[in-house]
Amino acid sequence: MNRPVLVIGNRNYSSWSLRPWLLLRQFGVEFDEVRLPLDAPDFAAQALRHSPTGKVPALRDGELAVWDSLAICEYANERWLGGNGWPADLHRRALARAAAAEMHSGFTALRTQLPMNSRRRPDAYRWDAAAQRDIDRVQALWRELRRDHGAGGDFLFGEFGIVDAMFAPVAIRFDGYGVPVDDTVAAYMQALFALPALRQWRQAAEQERERVAATDALCRPA
Amino acid sequence: MNRPVLVIGNRNYSSWSLRPWLLLRQFGVEFDEVRLPLDAPDFAAQALRHSPTGKVPALRDGELAVWDSLAICEYANERWLGGNGWPADLHRRALARAAAAEMHSGFTALRTQLPMNSRRRPDAYRWDAAAQRDIDRVQALWRELRRDHGAGGDFLFGEFGIVDAMFAPVAIRFDGYGVPVDDTVAAYMQALFALPALRQWRQAAEQERERVAATDALCRPA
Repeated sequence: MNRPVLVIGNRNYSSWSLRPWLLLRQFGVEFDEVRLPLDAPDFAAQALRHSPTGKVPALRDGELAVWDSLAICEYANERWLGGNGWPADLHRRALARAAAAEMHSGFTALRTQLPMNSRRRPDAYRWDAAAQRDIDRVQALWRELRRDHGAGGDFLFGEFGIVDAMFAPVAIRFDGYGVPVDDTVAAYMQALFALPALRQWRQAAEQERERVAATDALCRPA
Repeated sequence: MNRPVLVIGNRNYSSWSLRPWLLLRQFGVEFDEVRLPLDAPDFAAQALRHSPTGKVPALRDGELAVWDSLAICEYANERWLGGNGWPADLHRRALARAAAAEMHSGFTALRTQLPMNSRRRPDAYRWDAAAQRDIDRVQALWRELRRDHGAGGDFLFGEFGIVDAMFAPVAIRFDGYGVPVDDTVAAYMQALFALPALRQWRQAAEQERERVAATDALCRPA
């Protein structure tokens, strides 16, 4: 049987690509990869070959082409993960999906002003009050989920799952932009950064040669 | 056992509230309702009593509080719908989730420039090219899904399900703003509008007395 193919953008910048990639890799699903640099002139044309939206990530599994990071995670959960991508308990699964969905549709100021840039190191760049509200909400959510449901592991619901994959790019943002965090949030970020699959992604991001100028420009002190 | 409680905004304007409400009602799930007008001065304070995001919709089921429209639909699907909220076939379920997720996180121009306003009637108001691209993509998606998977019913995958609930507010937008549609799209919209639950929602929206001025102002000819 042919292996599934995951179409991703640059590792350094494509936060949406990281989410399903991390889930599949961390759960040991074997897949091939097509990498399309986000700022290449023919990006949209290339992406449209794999996804009706012309965006990444996209997953091909035989004749099936699935788009959208969250939908790919849900499909992977059913197809390869035996349902272990979400907490086993019905109520906890609902909360995990609510947190993942909040990430999926929200935090616009955080996403716009602190775009993922895995190579970035903290400097004097700062963000506005709307982004800080997003940051505060993310951190409050992480603290609450770990406190109430994190027993038995280092992640939001104990074991690593889809909800952690959805938030992994936010941990990279907090790290690269020097966002202040408390000990609980720092511990969760370290648990994510210690995942072998995430270490591998970030190491590969260091090696990428393409640059997205507008994102890199945020590295300049304000 | 206590009935679940769905917290919604105004029927006329709250597109995100309509989605889980329509799903629950159309599938015959009994629930109580708390309605919080979106523009009330104490809206956020009231909403925070039900949801950690201070937004609607939110669902309470005993001790559980679930937020986010899509996560509520997924929970309802597992809790009350016996999985019938999504297509039974694994591949079709993946496509339905991809379409629902695309609606959940995307179509920003369409959502901003053509906000749901169930009482609205078409006039000379027009939208920009970005909103038209969203409109074109939605209609292409509907046509493709109905053509490939719509056999056996009037909806995107035959029978009514979560993906149709997610797109129902877009049908109301197309109707109220006079967005041009072809016969296939018009037939799908009519199937949605014929749902008893959606008829009930829209009739109640006609009776609401609260007005959101910024949304109603779009009714003026440009």
